Amino acid sequence: MPENRNIKLIVEYDGTDFYGFQSQPVKPTIQQALEKALHGLFQEKIKITAASGRTDAGVHAEAQVVNFKTTSELLLHRVERGLNHFLPDSISVLSAEEVSADFHARFHAISKTYEYRIWNLSARPAIWRNRAYHESAPLDLALMKKAAKYLIGKHDFRAFTSEEKIVKSRDVRRDQISFIRTVKKITLKKMGHMIVMSVEADGFLYHMVRNFAGTLVAVGKGKLRPQDIKTILKSHDRKKAAETLPAHGLCLKKVIYSSGTA
Amino acid sequence: MPENRNIKLIVEYDGTDFYGFQSQPVKPTIQQALEKALHGLFQEKIKITAASGRTDAGVHAEAQVVNFKTTSELLLHRVERGLNHFLPDSISVLSAEEVSADFHARFHAISKTYEYRIWNLSARPAIWRNRAYHESAPLDLALMKKAAKYLIGKHDFRAFTSEEKIVKSRDVRRDQISFIRTVKKITLKKMGHMIVMSVEADGFLYHMVRNFAGTLVAVGKGKLRPQDIKTILKSHDRKKAAETLPAHGLCLKKVIYSSGTA
Repeated sequence: MPENRNIKLIVEYDGTDFYGFQSQPVKPTIQQALEKALHGLFQEKIKITAASGRTDAGVHAEAQVVNFKTTSELLLHRVERGLNHFLPDSISVLSAEEVSADFHARFHAISKTYEYRIWNLSARPAIWRNRAYHESAPLDLALMKKAAKYLIGKHDFRAFTSEEKIVKSRDVRRDQISFIRTVKKITLKKMGHMIVMSVEADGFLYHMVRNFAGTLVAVGKGKLRPQDIKTILKSHDRKKAAETLPAHGLCLKKVIYSSGTA
Repeated sequence: MPENRNIKLIVEYDGTDFYGFQSQPVKPTIQQALEKALHGLFQEKIKITAASGRTDAGVHAEAQVVNFKTTSELLLHRVERGLNHFLPDSISVLSAEEVSADFHARFHAISKTYEYRIWNLSARPAIWRNRAYHESAPLDLALMKKAAKYLIGKHDFRAFTSEEKIVKSRDVRRDQISFIRTVKKITLKKMGHMIVMSVEADGFLYHMVRNFAGTLVAVGKGKLRPQDIKTILKSHDRKKAAETLPAHGLCLKKVIYSSGTA
């Protein structure tokens, strides 16, 4: 009997037409599309594990990482080509690679980078309509950069997530959940009419990047001061931070693994 | 009776769902959509003039420039907002500005910049599927850059256009048509899996950028040598250059006017 191979895929997708990553009844998701393509190619039922398996409807990825086990001996470039044949054109497997048996796309990720795009112009975007949030009020980028610095480091990010949602979604007691994450880097860049916020962290809480974006936009508009971020963080109170920005501005850019695991 | 105002618009669009810029019977075009929106807003029949009025189906624009005359005294920011209300979400008027009576979006343009995007990876693109040409063979960027240099300057670009198409589309004798254009700048940049070719010229012949792209891809694959570009240019023979790449990789980035005209 052939041994189980563990295969790691890097997957790019336009999330516009999907109801997020994770499988759910009726509505199309990225996971369903991938597992359907795997079934088409290997003629066996395969379950995948993703680095970021809980992304919302409309969120995009340039490099989501998934892994799955199979006994098939199909050559890797044929796995890539075969899956892309079965996938809709809004999802593409960029690469397929064989990894050690214990590699786990979620547990072994040591950092992830997300980008949030803000189209900052009176007029709405056309080309970027599904990939950027439209903010028509002028934003002060220098203030936003100043504010972002307070988010860097190891903090309890309870003020930037939905505590209730996390408690409900996991089968654990509230006091067993850690809201501590380490934000390694945040950058804000203006390119043409677009402001791109990039956040690298060891992990992300529910809606964390979209709440960062909303709060930095509030700073850019002058509704909050940069130093207010410090107070908001300490408050552990979601109501202190600003609104969650919409999902379609969000994109998973990169997942990093320690050299030993992939 | 109010005087005629001359209004200049900067228009962004995703060309995917349109049959090019210029109006034609039955099929939807950018011009039709704009003129319909102008009719909706001003309740009068208005004809627009565009900097690049002949772009093909599927071509995009980040900053197409058009102008039109109206007797309406509507404030400019209301023109922008009003038009965006009537336009489909794949077209956006980024700005509206009043210009001198003699300003003409096409005749007064002194340079235009187009970008052509090549997704260079074995796997096809997902997010960029409607905005980049997929070339799966590895391309040698250094050779392509070397080849591009031969295209810079004032040349007869007959080898990079369809002479017949131009003769047919204009009501002039063949010897009255000039194929001489000045390419001011060509750059090639690699960003992730994407190669972006940017071309600035005082004017463009039919399919010129898409033929440049096809020929540079042939160089990148090793099918042509950089110095062959020189021979191809001199030959004035379309058959010597490589294939025309598809329209959806092309985007009009910028139109420049002399300071006196706008």
